[in-house]
Amino acid sequence: MSLISPQVSAFDTRVTAYLQRLERTMDAVLPAASTDPARLHEAIRYACEGGKHLRALMVYAAGETLAVAPEKLDAAACAVELIHAYSLVHDDLPGMDNDDLRRGRPTVHKAYDEATAILVGDALQTSAFEALATTNALDAEQKVRMITALAHASGSLGMVGGQAVDMASENLTLTLAQLESLHARKTGALILVTCQLAAIAANASETVRNALDRYGRCIGLAFQIQDDVLDQIADTATLGKTAGKDLAQHKSTFPSLLGLEQAQQRANDLFDEARDAARSISGNADPLLWLADHIQQRKH
Amino acid sequence: MSLISPQVSAFDTRVTAYLQRLERTMDAVLPAASTDPARLHEAIRYACEGGKHLRALMVYAAGETLAVAPEKLDAAACAVELIHAYSLVHDDLPGMDNDDLRRGRPTVHKAYDEATAILVGDALQTSAFEALATTNALDAEQKVRMITALAHASGSLGMVGGQAVDMASENLTLTLAQLESLHARKTGALILVTCQLAAIAANASETVRNALDRYGRCIGLAFQIQDDVLDQIADTATLGKTAGKDLAQHKSTFPSLLGLEQAQQRANDLFDEARDAARSISGNADPLLWLADHIQQRKH
Repeated sequence: MSLISPQVSAFDTRVTAYLQRLERTMDAVLPAASTDPARLHEAIRYACEGGKHLRALMVYAAGETLAVAPEKLDAAACAVELIHAYSLVHDDLPGMDNDDLRRGRPTVHKAYDEATAILVGDALQTSAFEALATTNALDAEQKVRMITALAHASGSLGMVGGQAVDMASENLTLTLAQLESLHARKTGALILVTCQLAAIAANASETVRNALDRYGRCIGLAFQIQDDVLDQIADTATLGKTAGKDLAQHKSTFPSLLGLEQAQQRANDLFDEARDAARSISGNADPLLWLADHIQQRKH
Repeated sequence: MSLISPQVSAFDTRVTAYLQRLERTMDAVLPAASTDPARLHEAIRYACEGGKHLRALMVYAAGETLAVAPEKLDAAACAVELIHAYSLVHDDLPGMDNDDLRRGRPTVHKAYDEATAILVGDALQTSAFEALATTNALDAEQKVRMITALAHASGSLGMVGGQAVDMASENLTLTLAQLESLHARKTGALILVTCQLAAIAANASETVRNALDRYGRCIGLAFQIQDDVLDQIADTATLGKTAGKDLAQHKSTFPSLLGLEQAQQRANDLFDEARDAARSISGNADPLLWLADHIQQRKH
């Protein structure tokens, strides 16, 4: 009798395959570390190492549910990870969160210097759009739709706007609605767009797009609630980034507004709703169901 | 008898029309200053105000020479100005050049704060690619080609790479070849791409593309030599940015390597070569010729 349940094993095999594709694509998109200027390119690659790559996994899982050929997902998976990596590098800067630790290692401005970290983030953002524009696996219409969706999710009405609201909200007590709106932008928009990019690759119908959007929105919010919970209960070594930051920065969090137990319950309800949304899509929903389980069980 | 030569007058009329188109496009692409988060959107617009908009003028002038309908140039002109604006906001940050003055006004991190300036630059870059992806005036193939060209010009192999080399070169004496290579990336790539974007809008032949590239390369290098000369001879009030910075930062410049007079001569030779390239294009080269004159005569 195997100790590994067949479902977990099937999902682990998938994750390994997805991450191999992501790594190959990143390696092809980013200039080699030895390319002039070498220090910059080395730092760009340093910024992309480590991490859980959940956003890329979501692109591949949503795409697999819609029976999209994986090569049509590579650029999108790579692009969302590049946007995510750029946002972390800039968020960690002394002028922003001033953090020394990320993914268990020194942040880019600590490992290199502040100016390099600014430029690394800038170049990673550029590479995200370049990855979508230069892939051979999509037609021009799909590329344009993906670039539009990714720009909207990551710009001043999405991720960057959410980060601005987050900083302006330090020392304020937000309502639950304000906190959800903040995170719908700061982390939710980029998680949601992973589903939208897969839908574009599939030329999906409106019904499918709506169901995938619901899945993406639920996962995005649940993920953030979990993040707040983990920031409060986990230690820095497990997280790979500074724990207890929200309290130190006097930030409103889901546990601070709802209590720890209620916050965890709300996250669990959202994971259930995400699974409902996944099951409503005609196709093999297993990758999306397993991914919801995988995210729900994360410890960092 | 008119005191204004008919050529200058015709060019001034053109410039006014070009800048009106640019302003209208920027206004449509950027969220209103009152859009939530309002402080961020106000700062984004602040960062785009003022400036000479030479890069947008180059897109329009090159496009007019190739008889492109101006609405096919709007997104490209806007996108290069957004990339340029983002690069100035980030270059001025305390972690980079730490400058207080830009376009005669406080820099974004001085007028707002450092975190806002980081986010403003990030959002401006996103908006540049969004502008190209969402215009109705180009087909999807043209959009993808423009996004590819702009990403290449502005990323780690172009503008951002040049900025990294520039910072690494402080306190070093470069050779003329090294200095030209640095500036071909730092300022030259974005100036060159204005011609390439116009060529894409025109679906231009390889011969035309090559001639326009030659024009763009000559203007880009001449512009930078001029910048170095002006930094040395003009005052801060005229420049609208801190004068004498190169010397203070111990940077190699064209005047420091060639002497002031030789540097000016080299710039003039390059402007002449740019005019030769413009005249070799079948079409009405006047806009490109007048633009070369206009840039050559600038005092800031």
